[in-house]
Amino acid sequence: MAFHLMQRDRVGAGVLVQALSEALQTIQHCVQCNNFTEAPLCELCNSERRDAHLLCVIETPADLLMMEQTHAYRGMYFVLMGRLSPLDGIGPQEIRLDRLLDRATDGVTEEVILATNFTAEGEATAHAISELLRPKGLRVTRIARGVPVGGELEYVDSGTLAQALLERRPTSR
Amino acid sequence: MAFHLMQRDRVGAGVLVQALSEALQTIQHCVQCNNFTEAPLCELCNSERRDAHLLCVIETPADLLMMEQTHAYRGMYFVLMGRLSPLDGIGPQEIRLDRLLDRATDGVTEEVILATNFTAEGEATAHAISELLRPKGLRVTRIARGVPVGGELEYVDSGTLAQALLERRPTSR
Repeated sequence: MAFHLMQRDRVGAGVLVQALSEALQTIQHCVQCNNFTEAPLCELCNSERRDAHLLCVIETPADLLMMEQTHAYRGMYFVLMGRLSPLDGIGPQEIRLDRLLDRATDGVTEEVILATNFTAEGEATAHAISELLRPKGLRVTRIARGVPVGGELEYVDSGTLAQALLERRPTSR
Repeated sequence: MAFHLMQRDRVGAGVLVQALSEALQTIQHCVQCNNFTEAPLCELCNSERRDAHLLCVIETPADLLMMEQTHAYRGMYFVLMGRLSPLDGIGPQEIRLDRLLDRATDGVTEEVILATNFTAEGEATAHAISELLRPKGLRVTRIARGVPVGGELEYVDSGTLAQALLERRPTSR
């Protein structure tokens, strides 16, 4: 990209410099949800139309966009900006679990929904957060694991099918 | 295939004729689980190592193979050999829901696990069976819907994510 800019798009390089340095100066982490924002408190945390009793923990800002696209969630968020990954030297300090603890025990939050990925690191992160928050008397839940909507048994991997079977639930009326 | 066999593989065509006519004579439906079998009662229904209290309802013999590959299920099966599909003229009679009712109310079965696909037809079929069996005092469950094992939020469709959120469950100790 650097070679391309130097050789063929020096004007574009200037625009990029401008944009990046502006971003460096204005973009910060929201003091409440840890997402990227230009104000100290982001728009979502500042909104009065969100349900403050629910706190959804996710790994990245991209995951927050995905959650919002479902239009099924009206609560607050906490963005970890990563996941536990001991092999890469990322422990509880690096993903700021202390700040999550402060956020979750603010007296308003009643339920913490763990929506980290269903990868090994995401599951370990969810487990660690659950162990951290459950003793504080908070209701800690995990989003469901199973067969995707529209999925056919024949094309689902056997690990997912085994989990779906294990986590079966009574049919509703 | 017919042209290929006539032109290039007349011996193979003979073998196919033999195999198909043998299959036509020997393959029938198991009187208990409705799967294909050579004996009146299939090997699986005849086995004493299966848990007779559990009955898993699936659409096709291929789904049975998938379930067995998980090594997570030790109960019995009922193979619908199809699904409810009113647009194609397939109603409760065509998929033998009366036989399923007889099978499930044999006095031994305690829980019926609905493992039809998560397509529109599969869901409708599961709902119909649930309505049919719940009044009989049976525990009727559905395999879990949600994010697949190994799945990342960023690559999951929003319908599945919304369901996973809706069907979240408390984290276990």
